[in-house]
Amino acid sequence: MTFTGLQLRSLIREDNTLELSLTEVDMPEPGPNEVIVRIEATPLNPSDLALLLGPADIGTARVSGSAERPVVSADIPAGLMRMVAGRLGQSLPVGNEGAGVVVAAGSSGAAQALMGKTVGIAGGEMYAQYRCVNAYTCMVIPEGTSAAQGASCFVNPMTALGMVETMRAEGHTALVHTAAASNLGQMLNRICIEDGIDLVNIVRKPEQEKILRDLGASYVINSTSDTFFKDLTSALAETGATLAFDATGGGKLASHILSCMEAAAVQAMTEYNRYGSDVYKQVYIYGVLDNSPTTLSRAFGFSWGIGGWLLPKFLQKAGTEKMMQMQARVAAGLKTTFASHYTSEISLAEVFSLEAMAEYSKQATGKKVLIRPQQ
Amino acid sequence: MTFTGLQLRSLIREDNTLELSLTEVDMPEPGPNEVIVRIEATPLNPSDLALLLGPADIGTARVSGSAERPVVSADIPAGLMRMVAGRLGQSLPVGNEGAGVVVAAGSSGAAQALMGKTVGIAGGEMYAQYRCVNAYTCMVIPEGTSAAQGASCFVNPMTALGMVETMRAEGHTALVHTAAASNLGQMLNRICIEDGIDLVNIVRKPEQEKILRDLGASYVINSTSDTFFKDLTSALAETGATLAFDATGGGKLASHILSCMEAAAVQAMTEYNRYGSDVYKQVYIYGVLDNSPTTLSRAFGFSWGIGGWLLPKFLQKAGTEKMMQMQARVAAGLKTTFASHYTSEISLAEVFSLEAMAEYSKQATGKKVLIRPQQ
Repeated sequence: MTFTGLQLRSLIREDNTLELSLTEVDMPEPGPNEVIVRIEATPLNPSDLALLLGPADIGTARVSGSAERPVVSADIPAGLMRMVAGRLGQSLPVGNEGAGVVVAAGSSGAAQALMGKTVGIAGGEMYAQYRCVNAYTCMVIPEGTSAAQGASCFVNPMTALGMVETMRAEGHTALVHTAAASNLGQMLNRICIEDGIDLVNIVRKPEQEKILRDLGASYVINSTSDTFFKDLTSALAETGATLAFDATGGGKLASHILSCMEAAAVQAMTEYNRYGSDVYKQVYIYGVLDNSPTTLSRAFGFSWGIGGWLLPKFLQKAGTEKMMQMQARVAAGLKTTFASHYTSEISLAEVFSLEAMAEYSKQATGKKVLIRPQQ
Repeated sequence: MTFTGLQLRSLIREDNTLELSLTEVDMPEPGPNEVIVRIEATPLNPSDLALLLGPADIGTARVSGSAERPVVSADIPAGLMRMVAGRLGQSLPVGNEGAGVVVAAGSSGAAQALMGKTVGIAGGEMYAQYRCVNAYTCMVIPEGTSAAQGASCFVNPMTALGMVETMRAEGHTALVHTAAASNLGQMLNRICIEDGIDLVNIVRKPEQEKILRDLGASYVINSTSDTFFKDLTSALAETGATLAFDATGGGKLASHILSCMEAAAVQAMTEYNRYGSDVYKQVYIYGVLDNSPTTLSRAFGFSWGIGGWLLPKFLQKAGTEKMMQMQARVAAGLKTTFASHYTSEISLAEVFSLEAMAEYSKQATGKKVLIRPQQ
């Protein structure tokens, strides 16, 4: 029996246009260790949007094709084309993670054991009706937990756990997180409460403050408040947090965090040092909610670092054993600590609706879309 | 016998003024392991200027006091006062390093062995006629090498060697250096030639290009050239340099270096990755020639870091044995690899001349002032 299904593709052409389309793909016969998963649910993460839409101007998007096979085209500003030089002319599948039912399995015991099971999977190409993957990479979703509940079992849970593991590995004892009311931020808040780690949450809106306080967060700072610097410095002095994960990337937020960390460290110094404090302060940028340049005012001495942080790179460094421990914790907590909430569910074809696109391309905090490829 | 001499002091008052003065200081009886050094020569390094002048506006400087005991006052812009909050009201001695003759020694063998010797010393308070230091921290300057030749035996030589050691410790194989025609840059160029390390020198002026080429540098890139990005990317592709030391700090140079490192890495990739290359790229900011904010355009993937680099911090991490190896190399090469060149010599009192101040406060590449405290 052969499985055939639709797969979403993203293509950037040399004429500065993005083109999204659906194509029919035949699954291969699964190899001995492979399984075919019928994908039931796959989320639209911020990390998917970069590949899905590239730097296209969504305001220019127009739909063509048929209702079953829609095509969306949108213009890319000429100045941004060099950002995507490496993918020109390649029709790329999209979708980092998802969950579904194993409908075919290779001959090995590991593969056969998964037949009929609901599994969570990662590794790209999930915006599709079927996906062939290695059985060893499947996370079995416990009985009583749905595919929708398991669809976000990888990116957010492993990222949030990865932040905590990075904190431990690099000798810090508390954390700062920006865009902290996001799905990921709420998850990190739950993990930190469970593990007794002080977490300083930075948000931009009063309603986001409320979300986190209602979830038991002790430190919630509003970056638009007049007392932001004072509030943040005092939270940093209390918690001793010297590591921040920043989802925004652009603007001055990373610089402000480093400055307040330094101010907190200087409060504890007894002697003047013109090079600033000895306390090492680190900000990792793990997202690009703000595409504008990062601006560092460097009023924080010489003991600081800022850098990119990427989940696959972290997992590579952490090793297989640590990764499996993390995955087991996620599987056990899919309905609690690692639960994701979706504000809407759409079919594969609806990804192409201009209305849906205007919504999900915003990456608004608290909004998250789940794709249901079988609908 | 007691030694008494002048010592330069820098004071920042709460009324937003900087005040430089000379004060008479009695040396203590040296302890068993201590020696009294009559300081013959001490350089004005960029790293000294931050403590000496703070963020004062040198255009407002005025001289008072007598010819032997001049006092300079200058205004500090109100907005910059928070940068120096930690040193308000403290009369601070200045001067990172120097060289002179041991004129008194404690009872221990190590101290006695230094009597009459010319030694290089570091540790602050060198803009003075005498300094009491621990004998173990003295670098004996070889016969035939003068105090003036040994005056810069610490900051530049150890910084340049520290860059090379950092490169090795962090797994890079070639270096990029900015403001590369400086005394320090020329020294780094000589070390890299000796050690067979590829060094990409970035300068701003044709005459600086010439200085380095005349010294045998293979890669000299002018950041004001129309072909800067192309030139730098091709030098980075050839050398595989993924670590840069930036003396400027402000502006877009660090960002440009990371972008060109990424472009060089992407040239070698066979498959598109929306997160950019896997090649880890690092820029360390070790100076503040440009006080303006550092602006990062982040068109260089997620595998990057930028941070502060400070010699004392590096030496602490490297350990005593490595530091002693480095010092021995410096002592042997004070007239060759580690030679410094000065464009003028001034007395302690002349540090207070508005003319000299206008000159040395500029930190111009190729200009370096030596203070002669006994004149």
